[in-house]
Amino acid sequence: MRRWALNVDDVPEPVPQSGQALTRVLACGICGSDLHLLQHGEESLALRDELAAENPPGPLDPVPFEADQPTIMGHEFCCEVVELGPGCENLAEGDIVVSMPAAFDAAGVHAIGFSNLYPGGYAERIVLNDLLALKVPNRLEPRLAALTEPFAVGVHAVAKSGIRSDDAAIVLGCGPIGLAVIADLKQRGVSPVVAADLSPGRRALAERLGADEVVDPTVEPAIVAWRRVDGTRPVVIFEAVGVPGMLDACMRMAPKGTRITVVGACLEADTVRPIIGIGKELSLQFVLGYEPHEFAAALMAIAEGKVDLEPMITGSVTVDGVPQAFADLGHPDAHAKILVQP
Amino acid sequence: MRRWALNVDDVPEPVPQSGQALTRVLACGICGSDLHLLQHGEESLALRDELAAENPPGPLDPVPFEADQPTIMGHEFCCEVVELGPGCENLAEGDIVVSMPAAFDAAGVHAIGFSNLYPGGYAERIVLNDLLALKVPNRLEPRLAALTEPFAVGVHAVAKSGIRSDDAAIVLGCGPIGLAVIADLKQRGVSPVVAADLSPGRRALAERLGADEVVDPTVEPAIVAWRRVDGTRPVVIFEAVGVPGMLDACMRMAPKGTRITVVGACLEADTVRPIIGIGKELSLQFVLGYEPHEFAAALMAIAEGKVDLEPMITGSVTVDGVPQAFADLGHPDAHAKILVQP
Repeated sequence: MRRWALNVDDVPEPVPQSGQALTRVLACGICGSDLHLLQHGEESLALRDELAAENPPGPLDPVPFEADQPTIMGHEFCCEVVELGPGCENLAEGDIVVSMPAAFDAAGVHAIGFSNLYPGGYAERIVLNDLLALKVPNRLEPRLAALTEPFAVGVHAVAKSGIRSDDAAIVLGCGPIGLAVIADLKQRGVSPVVAADLSPGRRALAERLGADEVVDPTVEPAIVAWRRVDGTRPVVIFEAVGVPGMLDACMRMAPKGTRITVVGACLEADTVRPIIGIGKELSLQFVLGYEPHEFAAALMAIAEGKVDLEPMITGSVTVDGVPQAFADLGHPDAHAKILVQP
Repeated sequence: MRRWALNVDDVPEPVPQSGQALTRVLACGICGSDLHLLQHGEESLALRDELAAENPPGPLDPVPFEADQPTIMGHEFCCEVVELGPGCENLAEGDIVVSMPAAFDAAGVHAIGFSNLYPGGYAERIVLNDLLALKVPNRLEPRLAALTEPFAVGVHAVAKSGIRSDDAAIVLGCGPIGLAVIADLKQRGVSPVVAADLSPGRRALAERLGADEVVDPTVEPAIVAWRRVDGTRPVVIFEAVGVPGMLDACMRMAPKGTRITVVGACLEADTVRPIIGIGKELSLQFVLGYEPHEFAAALMAIAEGKVDLEPMITGSVTVDGVPQAFADLGHPDAHAKILVQP
């Protein structure tokens, strides 16, 4: 297998161990992290190794995956249980489930979708842990249930920001994560939520997800728009773009004492001016992933109709269509979330 | 007056307005901010103007000072009251006082030491507001009382970090602010406090201020030293160096979930790798100054002997000696805090 190339291949069917179930993937979202890994895989692994020198991995850190062995990506999945391994107490055959993309066995924790051992949701069949899988309630469609994972990222980012329901919010970037943040902010009653994106298509999605004010930042900076529609409450800034220059832009626009929540994953080096942070006593909270209770809450919010994430789904492909979908996602105006539906 | 040059001159005696007192300066510390202003004054004012475009100043922001008019610096002072203006209810002639370096009048708030109107403590006599001045208790020596302001910066940084008494701390940089942070951490019972500085003189001061483990980071990185002496508690990192590269160093060394408190004022641009922050869910809290209650608590802790800051004072000059003291402070190994004692 060539390094960092995407290909479609036949692989052996995975076998569930004790406490695990074999499942059939019904839908799996394509995540920006997967695109990042393809583009910046070498640097990502080099950075992982550099950091490990100063911070040795702990026992609950995922078993590292290696670049010279195949990895089947896909960590935003909804599946049907087809076969139970020994010792399963939660699941039954035929259950429709989602799960945090992690698997446990005697070797440790594996990040499903970033593992040489556990295939991710771009495979037709994957193994899940009985203890981590959550049954999808209310006959929620699998395509919507597959949005649990990216929505949980937004739920976690909003929780970690410490925002209160009487604060205001600015969301920079309306890709899937920015949209998930917007949906959760509105679910919590935050108002106004001012969103900004360069793409007209994504701005339209931000409006459908509930943003109160949506701007093209080249026409009206988000902070100016916030001042126009509010300007009085404490404002929390969510950075969901993830390209160089965004941290400085956030720090420059932020009013005194602002908490900036960084959920956009910028893989390149970025330049900041620390004295701006000092002068305004800003804080930058970087966030990643979610807690199990946030994942479960994300599923329930979707299943109970508290959030309507349908507009996020802008396309659907079979496994054979994944390479083309990756190419299409390079044009952010056309798409937010593309689902793989084997 | 030449721009950004330091000189010694005779100026008219300031006149207290209603609610203000004329005081005689007994001691005033030289702060790194003053050295910064001399070195980077033009850029500082340019940045101030740039930020004002996105964040218009509020009514309690200090009245801006201008570069083309004289400014008498000095904001770490202890004074004796010599004359009361009308309407003073707190002070009496002969009182020994400290004050947050701010003055109020009908024009607004003025930053004493960074104002064209209110001289700072490198002058022989300065005007203070009756309401802001605190009487120095316990016959505390004025030279120690003058450390209230820099110690309050440490008290505030520690408070803002959210550190708990059962956490550990790493303090990078043992200049006056790093030393103030160390003193407050030990006052709160934090242990171990691991301190790092390139300078042997400053490492010796860190030990005297109470650091449990003091390292030369070129010999043993602070995070390695912390792992050697503890390695189990949550650790809070204080960045008190303020030069480019420190933010990346902090983010690289930090264990998962670490709060990094940035109190070192880096005036130059700095490069970070946001993905390191994301991967470990780090937070960067930039801090500045203190609240009035923290300033008062800093004075009480010194006056009651809860902290012994005497080792911080490494020199004393008269007003005529200020230019030489500024030059001497360019050699950080020789000095921590130099007091001006008119």
